[in-house]
Amino acid sequence: MFNEFGKIIKLTTYGESHGPAIGGIIDGFPAGLSVDLDAIQKELDRRKPGQSKIVTQRKEDDKVEFLSGIFEGKTTGQSIGFVIKNTNQKSKDYEHNTQIFRPSHADFTYFQKYGIRDHRGGGRTSARETANWVVAGALSKQLLPLISINAFVSSVGDIHIEKDIDKLDLTQTENNIVRCPDEEIAEKMIKKISETKKEGDTIGGIITCIVKNVPIGLGEPVFDKLSSRLAQAMMSINAAKGFEIGSGFGGTRLKGSEHNDIFTEEGKTLTNRSGGIQGGISNGMDIVFKVAFKPVATIMKEQQTIDEKGNLTVINGKGRHDPCVVPRAVPVVEALAALVLADFWLLNKTRRI
Amino acid sequence: MFNEFGKIIKLTTYGESHGPAIGGIIDGFPAGLSVDLDAIQKELDRRKPGQSKIVTQRKEDDKVEFLSGIFEGKTTGQSIGFVIKNTNQKSKDYEHNTQIFRPSHADFTYFQKYGIRDHRGGGRTSARETANWVVAGALSKQLLPLISINAFVSSVGDIHIEKDIDKLDLTQTENNIVRCPDEEIAEKMIKKISETKKEGDTIGGIITCIVKNVPIGLGEPVFDKLSSRLAQAMMSINAAKGFEIGSGFGGTRLKGSEHNDIFTEEGKTLTNRSGGIQGGISNGMDIVFKVAFKPVATIMKEQQTIDEKGNLTVINGKGRHDPCVVPRAVPVVEALAALVLADFWLLNKTRRI
Amino acid sequence: MFNEFGKIIKLTTYGESHGPAIGGIIDGFPAGLSVDLDAIQKELDRRKPGQSKIVTQRKEDDKVEFLSGIFEGKTTGQSIGFVIKNTNQKSKDYEHNTQIFRPSHADFTYFQKYGIRDHRGGGRTSARETANWVVAGALSKQLLPLISINAFVSSVGDIHIEKDIDKLDLTQTENNIVRCPDEEIAEKMIKKISETKKEGDTIGGIITCIVKNVPIGLGEPVFDKLSSRLAQAMMSINAAKGFEIGSGFGGTRLKGSEHNDIFTEEGKTLTNRSGGIQGGISNGMDIVFKVAFKPVATIMKEQQTIDEKGNLTVINGKGRHDPCVVPRAVPVVEALAALVLADFWLLNKTRRI
Amino acid sequence: MFNEFGKIIKLTTYGESHGPAIGGIIDGFPAGLSVDLDAIQKELDRRKPGQSKIVTQRKEDDKVEFLSGIFEGKTTGQSIGFVIKNTNQKSKDYEHNTQIFRPSHADFTYFQKYGIRDHRGGGRTSARETANWVVAGALSKQLLPLISINAFVSSVGDIHIEKDIDKLDLTQTENNIVRCPDEEIAEKMIKKISETKKEGDTIGGIITCIVKNVPIGLGEPVFDKLSSRLAQAMMSINAAKGFEIGSGFGGTRLKGSEHNDIFTEEGKTLTNRSGGIQGGISNGMDIVFKVAFKPVATIMKEQQTIDEKGNLTVINGKGRHDPCVVPRAVPVVEALAALVLADFWLLNKTRRI
Repeated sequence: MFNEFGKIIKLTTYGESHGPAIGGIIDGFPAGLSVDLDAIQKELDRRKPGQSKIVTQRKEDDKVEFLSGIFEGKTTGQSIGFVIKNTNQKSKDYEHNTQIFRPSHADFTYFQKYGIRDHRGGGRTSARETANWVVAGALSKQLLPLISINAFVSSVGDIHIEKDIDKLDLTQTENNIVRCPDEEIAEKMIKKISETKKEGDTIGGIITCIVKNVPIGLGEPVFDKLSSRLAQAMMSINAAKGFEIGSGFGGTRLKGSEHNDIFTEEGKTLTNRSGGIQGGISNGMDIVFKVAFKPVATIMKEQQTIDEKGNLTVINGKGRHDPCVVPRAVPVVEALAALVLADFWLLNKTRRI
Repeated sequence: MFNEFGKIIKLTTYGESHGPAIGGIIDGFPAGLSVDLDAIQKELDRRKPGQSKIVTQRKEDDKVEFLSGIFEGKTTGQSIGFVIKNTNQKSKDYEHNTQIFRPSHADFTYFQKYGIRDHRGGGRTSARETANWVVAGALSKQLLPLISINAFVSSVGDIHIEKDIDKLDLTQTENNIVRCPDEEIAEKMIKKISETKKEGDTIGGIITCIVKNVPIGLGEPVFDKLSSRLAQAMMSINAAKGFEIGSGFGGTRLKGSEHNDIFTEEGKTLTNRSGGIQGGISNGMDIVFKVAFKPVATIMKEQQTIDEKGNLTVINGKGRHDPCVVPRAVPVVEALAALVLADFWLLNKTRRI
Repeated sequence: MFNEFGKIIKLTTYGESHGPAIGGIIDGFPAGLSVDLDAIQKELDRRKPGQSKIVTQRKEDDKVEFLSGIFEGKTTGQSIGFVIKNTNQKSKDYEHNTQIFRPSHADFTYFQKYGIRDHRGGGRTSARETANWVVAGALSKQLLPLISINAFVSSVGDIHIEKDIDKLDLTQTENNIVRCPDEEIAEKMIKKISETKKEGDTIGGIITCIVKNVPIGLGEPVFDKLSSRLAQAMMSINAAKGFEIGSGFGGTRLKGSEHNDIFTEEGKTLTNRSGGIQGGISNGMDIVFKVAFKPVATIMKEQQTIDEKGNLTVINGKGRHDPCVVPRAVPVVEALAALVLADFWLLNKTRRI
Repeated sequence: MFNEFGKIIKLTTYGESHGPAIGGIIDGFPAGLSVDLDAIQKELDRRKPGQSKIVTQRKEDDKVEFLSGIFEGKTTGQSIGFVIKNTNQKSKDYEHNTQIFRPSHADFTYFQKYGIRDHRGGGRTSARETANWVVAGALSKQLLPLISINAFVSSVGDIHIEKDIDKLDLTQTENNIVRCPDEEIAEKMIKKISETKKEGDTIGGIITCIVKNVPIGLGEPVFDKLSSRLAQAMMSINAAKGFEIGSGFGGTRLKGSEHNDIFTEEGKTLTNRSGGIQGGISNGMDIVFKVAFKPVATIMKEQQTIDEKGNLTVINGKGRHDPCVVPRAVPVVEALAALVLADFWLLNKTRRI
């Protein structure tokens, strides 16, 4: 529990945004995988700050160092320790926040729960933590070479992709800085984020994720359904407020006769309103899910708030923050999906004699 | 994992719809609680089949028997075993399905994953399992007497409550058979379900849940956030396809300056777009979340499908099924919310010295 | 935790000796095993009370009923619920103990910890619980048909087997009521127990367990070593006070040059002071371990004690108790060994790609 | 599982003896403890190599750096990452072992299990790992200031303390390099180890641990009894082959009337054959247990063995090894005891309403 995720492959993490380092341990990873370290760093680079004009201008190299569990290029079956040093903390940016609770942040709840909080940046609640997840996810992806996991930004504010998912060319996602595979919509999104940033404001968005070539049989009912665990994972991402699989909330308006996915002779289904999961177990169709992200709470505007003693005060945003979280959250969503799938893939080896 | 839920209070369950019984073990429940057995049975009665014209006409008494862990009316701190006998199985209703996969059911995935499935009713995938959850949830509610958990049906198909949540009188939820606190909308929902049933079809819907008087500090970042665990729990319910907390998917369209919940001097917030959870921890405001349910897959209409050998065939729905799952899912949503909250409440006793 | 044991195959149990039933859930058991129910009942019969003159004369049928997870004779991969009804409770035997703490029993600690205790028999602390373990262990044995697990009584009081383990004919264990494969020593043990019983007293003993044909590779360092988990399991048995693997305490007196197990060309070792486990992982040699059991605390003699209020008083043993725990603990030791091995066998399927 | 220990306070570790670093994460540690970092380093110094003539002459500073979870001197309730850099690896010492299995080492089992092993030093199986445990244990000790945990060497080979435990002055343990509180016996032990070292051989020994001022109520039946968890922890230490609590194996020779611990009016017991644990729960008396350690497997003598291809060959010990493991294992035993007790102490806060 707490800072741990997974059943067989367990990721446990630590680290505050303004401490010396963040890092983690990937335990239970099987022996014998030839690790592509560059591919892992590449995923980290997709997530790192400062990569474009629409994300935070903070600069962090986000270089991961592996400390154990990989020997002569292969995993050994032992726990894999890794560390990412913090190199660009500007704690001064946060000195004004020492005793003030930022609205819609975790400041208030952490202080109330623990009686103490690391007020530099987000401390433990910083989205910097998700770099750890990307390391573990990138490694997990290498366990499942046939599976392809493609997340992309499907909406920013009220701008959203209107095409059917089938019509999208997912190879285009990385071609623009907002990570939307529909180039036309991408431009509108970028413009929207840029304008919002200029206003000192932030904006929400939605990420869609499509996972192809998933083996049939992943997921462990009744409480560790594939859908349940994906939901838990995605709702752990900072700013996540909603999760849908397949037809999601929209599917509630349909009748059974409209919603059911009819089988073909090949064991596929004509439609995929189930989103690739039936009874909590993957059915071999694409897994399709969405994650809703609220607008980042830190805005460059004056807001009323209170301090630790309950006095009313005013806060002005400082620091270098993302005007919209979704472009950088794309690799995070993919990483968590990879972790969940790799874990269930291993677990599934134990379900039949 | 598998059939187990919770950290300190762990519910582990078993049972197929057409076996001799279902049941479970509630482990880790603290000693010293005077148990109100009638209140538990009452919750089961809210969930049981046959209670109204818009739910399945199957008759099950759903009487729970406690076998351990309660002595002279009080919990002893030992594991609490309970059993609910199955009394109204009509396995014959399912004989025609022996080797046929029902569309959008778990038949196909269970067969592929395990190589064997109990084809009577839903076997382990039957929503009958949720009676076990209601037992554990009803007991958990008693641990948290001040907290009130109120779920209700907020939409059926395209009929939905339009009033603000604050305007609803939640004491009215149980006054109609669809469990919607807005009487006018309730009537429309009942009519909609009745018509759908006549057509031999089914319809989806949404349940909203509001939890009041939650202590500040529940939830365990970074992976066992209160929102993450609620999501996992709710997505484990049969037919659940989506989960939102607070502003959810709608909140993605807002700007930070519109979305942020501004603090008052009392440590409350003027708005509650966070849905009572910030940084994964309860902030003392009402917890508000929604769960989307797809239409029940079993319809009384002919559908194309395949059998275990992959041959195309046709299936006709039989058995006694719910035309809409949401009225009976209301106590299930409440039960899981109670389980999650009671578990985090206990866990929170260990977070500070 | 609490009433749960195992990683993939998890046994969770409940039940007091004087409640309506005991039972459990075996979760995570793989699908597809043809279950021999008679073999399970046979193991229970080895453990049941009343089977000979040197064990408690309490009569319990100890019939196990399976409630789920087995369909048409095979495991389905779903949780396996089972129940053993209590049929011979004589709660009156315990009425005199209501508020008195029996010396060296769990009465005092349970009362202090939980503030409440089921004072009928041992309540949850009764060795009756071990019947649940035998069910799960007997099922686990069937997963591992090649492995043979042979526990036997190696000492009672100061009477002990003097022969080398290799010289014992383990097929003889069940030929006498004390379960010692050395017939001559068995007779002495039986005599010793009978005399002790006549005195109203009890006596301790040691069980040795030898597991043959164990696959190489079972055990999960660094904290779930095979030796660590066997130790945890065995020390969970009522009255267990010690555990040794291989050379154990005796091996501490040796030098490395005397203790090391030298390899043969076949990958076997000439000696087996390691007891079949090196670095926490099975090496293919016989696993050999011992469990020490103290004398049963309930004696038919007057003893000074205190009551719940701390007043000095006197207790006289009543009820039907074992004069020596080891004969009936033999199948319990085997059952837990089977559980541990089956669990690690499944887990080992995930350790290499 | 795997490299993780604990229920609420979970220690997860990583690191090979010849990699860049070892380290770990302490998750679930409560907020608000003022940490004495010097006290932690002091415990590490008790374990470190090179501290006396009777231990390995390898030099490692074993300096721990904390990377998170401690802010302005206090624990924050967040995961505590720490690292101990390896500074004195001499991998060359192990080059001759690349493909040879050292007798009674984990080389063979790791290679068979994982298909790959880090052959430098012990890799993951090195006792260097126990430095991680000492960090977590030393921190845990600070949670329980009233409890005192005193381990000491009670035997080396056939030299053992003969005095009653009550007669020992435990403040003397650190006064000699073998860590035996009986000065006269300590001298004999030191002589024994020195002689054994000269012979190029190694010798086993026993550590006794006495824990005073333990609160009543720690331990979680039925599978997480305090005795079960201590056994699991201690049997995880490299070279551990046996564990006893209280009367242990010796107690099996007694009768119930001799063994029972009679209560006094104060709720204490006149004797302590239970070793401070009854029914798996601490009873407030001293917890007393013993751990048996085999002689270190690496000896400076020629031994027959096999290589990875199964060919017979000869091995000569090299490297810098302990001639006897027990002096340096004393702080390790204490650390694991502290971890277990702190964990159960937190868990016990949840067992009553």
